[in-house]
Amino acid sequence: METLSTSVAFGGVQGVYRHASAATGTAMTFSVFVPEHEPDEHLPIVWYLSGLTCTHANVTEKGEFRAACARHRLIFVAPDTSPRGDDVSDDPAGAYDFGLGAGFYVDATRPPFDRHYRMWRYVTEELPTLVADHFPVDRTRQSIMGHSMGGHGALTIGLTFPDRFRAVSAFAPIVAPGIVPWGRKALAGYLGDDTAAWRRHDTVALIEDGARLPELLVDQGEADANLAEQLRPDLLADACRAVGIDLMLRRHPGYDHSYYFISTFMAEQLRWHADRLG
Amino acid sequence: METLSTSVAFGGVQGVYRHASAATGTAMTFSVFVPEHEPDEHLPIVWYLSGLTCTHANVTEKGEFRAACARHRLIFVAPDTSPRGDDVSDDPAGAYDFGLGAGFYVDATRPPFDRHYRMWRYVTEELPTLVADHFPVDRTRQSIMGHSMGGHGALTIGLTFPDRFRAVSAFAPIVAPGIVPWGRKALAGYLGDDTAAWRRHDTVALIEDGARLPELLVDQGEADANLAEQLRPDLLADACRAVGIDLMLRRHPGYDHSYYFISTFMAEQLRWHADRLG
Repeated sequence: METLSTSVAFGGVQGVYRHASAATGTAMTFSVFVPEHEPDEHLPIVWYLSGLTCTHANVTEKGEFRAACARHRLIFVAPDTSPRGDDVSDDPAGAYDFGLGAGFYVDATRPPFDRHYRMWRYVTEELPTLVADHFPVDRTRQSIMGHSMGGHGALTIGLTFPDRFRAVSAFAPIVAPGIVPWGRKALAGYLGDDTAAWRRHDTVALIEDGARLPELLVDQGEADANLAEQLRPDLLADACRAVGIDLMLRRHPGYDHSYYFISTFMAEQLRWHADRLG
Repeated sequence: METLSTSVAFGGVQGVYRHASAATGTAMTFSVFVPEHEPDEHLPIVWYLSGLTCTHANVTEKGEFRAACARHRLIFVAPDTSPRGDDVSDDPAGAYDFGLGAGFYVDATRPPFDRHYRMWRYVTEELPTLVADHFPVDRTRQSIMGHSMGGHGALTIGLTFPDRFRAVSAFAPIVAPGIVPWGRKALAGYLGDDTAAWRRHDTVALIEDGARLPELLVDQGEADANLAEQLRPDLLADACRAVGIDLMLRRHPGYDHSYYFISTFMAEQLRWHADRLG
């Protein structure tokens, strides 16, 4: 693992790191914030998955998470959203919503994307091991959150590993990719046309198929331009209600899809996580 | 004045605006955060001047000022750091420390820079009038802060208009541009070789020549790569001590020159401003 940069911030260290990923077959960059802590202390870890077009850098620079992470003594990890590199296949038309910057946290099975797009394995297996090897992490206390496509990642991963994460939340997540345009394009492109294979990567379908968490927290801006077509929190609310998942869906008038929205509610989400991480 | 974007954030509105500037003869872009407030309320205003290479966007995205501005009900304005445009002269070699992104908050007198580089007039006269015309500002309650080159701007403007600003502070400011390489290049380039003309744009020289403020707050990272050669807070400390200006110079071990440093201490500086803005 190579250290690209470190800066002291809010008493801790904000770093950016790179490593050769076996999962993606590429170099992968990610950021980690480690708050001030005692020499032998191991801290809870919050995973943050980013949205379309983002790298680790967006939340690292604009997310305003460090003050809360320092206060609650949480490690905060932000992976990239796709493999990167000259030999990594991209959307044929160069669109923002597929390929580079748009890995959708799945392991692609469809050529040519199956060669590098293994973000599920990367985020759920390889990176957790790497982070645990290099940072003072208490792996028994993990939680996960994300934004938009990354909210989709956080919810699907949280529902798949309910014993791993003590808290699961999202900002403006894509909750039904099997139904909405962003999701249908991505799942078809990475997984092919067999929609049965999509259900493991669709929050609403996972819940319908029996996945359970005791509770979820979702913040959603009501002025989000993607709300009605791509995000559909109503579908998540229906699915949770049907099976008794305690969804706290907070709708915020006036807020859009940007980091101005995320940063506003970041401290509250992290406090909610901290309460559950002990 | 044209609105380029607005987003709701921390209960207020973060906007980016553009207007045709008479001072610079160019279009100028700036950002304003207006916190939630009563319909007829006029709020104190904090001016934030940015450093080399920056536009309004750096602090707007990375400064983490909105939570504190919402809490203390402060309007926060971030101008650009130079005129921009195809016909605006730049550093002949394209260097980062002169020309575009490096206006140093002076009115240039030396051709060709005297044509557009009138940042002093822009920041002290034109933009305050424009902002007061369009936002719910209480002009009797203003303060100013800045970073690096913008710290230089904040300190020189604050010392020149002691009755206008109730608080003046800086992050890692250039305090003696007449002595340090960044400053000597800029002042010679914009004002010519007559170093007597530089003293109005040099914090230490202004204090030596009689300018006074009751107090100053400066945060400085001790791991700042520019500390010893370009910033020289020791010279500011000496100048303030000699004339009885109450300088609170806070040196922070480990912190560098980046927005990771600025964002860490932004809330504390804004609370200090709020205490003085009433």
